[in-house]
Amino acid sequence: MKQTLSVMVVNQTGVLARVAGLFSRRGFNIESLSVSTTEDKNISRMTIVVDGDEGTIEQVMKQLHKLIEVIKINNLTGTSYVDRGMALFKVAAGAAERAEVMQVVTIFRANIVDFCPNSLIIEATGSESKIAAIEEALRPFGIKEVVRTGEIAMARGIKAGSKKGGDAK
Amino acid sequence: MKQTLSVMVVNQTGVLARVAGLFSRRGFNIESLSVSTTEDKNISRMTIVVDGDEGTIEQVMKQLHKLIEVIKINNLTGTSYVDRGMALFKVAAGAAERAEVMQVVTIFRANIVDFCPNSLIIEATGSESKIAAIEEALRPFGIKEVVRTGEIAMARGIKAGSKKGGDAK
Repeated sequence: MKQTLSVMVVNQTGVLARVAGLFSRRGFNIESLSVSTTEDKNISRMTIVVDGDEGTIEQVMKQLHKLIEVIKINNLTGTSYVDRGMALFKVAAGAAERAEVMQVVTIFRANIVDFCPNSLIIEATGSESKIAAIEEALRPFGIKEVVRTGEIAMARGIKAGSKKGGDAK
Repeated sequence: MKQTLSVMVVNQTGVLARVAGLFSRRGFNIESLSVSTTEDKNISRMTIVVDGDEGTIEQVMKQLHKLIEVIKINNLTGTSYVDRGMALFKVAAGAAERAEVMQVVTIFRANIVDFCPNSLIIEATGSESKIAAIEEALRPFGIKEVVRTGEIAMARGIKAGSKKGGDAK
């Protein structure tokens, strides 16, 4: 079962290695991971998507809590949250195919972010399934390259989302 | 100096920990990282942004090449590439502020992806500086939470972008 964890950590060297090491020692393959600084430059936020049963993930969360650099962990799985990712697709579209590619872009409310005579780079955001759908739609034109962010997730509403209250540790 | 690396790796347990460990042992703090599967489910692609001088990054790249799970590394720094990230902002906007928040969203071509009576979740994509600008614009309304993806990057054009040719290893 896909589990989505939101982990606040101190932004310092080695934290990512320690967190990733914890998952790998338990045999969990991280499906996607995004880490970036937050509004407080001393704190980073990781969104980690892993496939695993709830019991084992709970064990990993307990281990994570023991890391001194981990400030807060939220398992968003089963709660009401928004999760989205972004992808860039490079499509081999010259003048002949461009109009048709632009139709796909419009339908999926994606954006063209780079233009070359024989290629376009398209930015798409959304759920995993929406990004998979636009990939399918672009495939016939020839996808030369794909880059994806990991998914990021945020609890809906103010109450559930105020993760900075520090009640989890 | 900010360096942007695009690293193709075999999608298996422990790879992220090994890659992250390599950076941390050299004292590099990873500023942002995105990892996700590619069109080939056996291969993941990491976009890593680190702050470091070119010489040391080259050393790290050499070490990365030695990891059997690393398929290909591209240092995009100094080349022509597109780099973008995504952020979600939860803003404490009730009925009174909503119209004004929507103006900011329109100006920055962002999207509202969740609606609650007293909060909105806004999705923004773009360069680091654009995302910083929208954050500034939203701050007066009260930002309750921010999540960012790491940046992802893609070389412009077809020639420079065909990274799957396998010439780097």
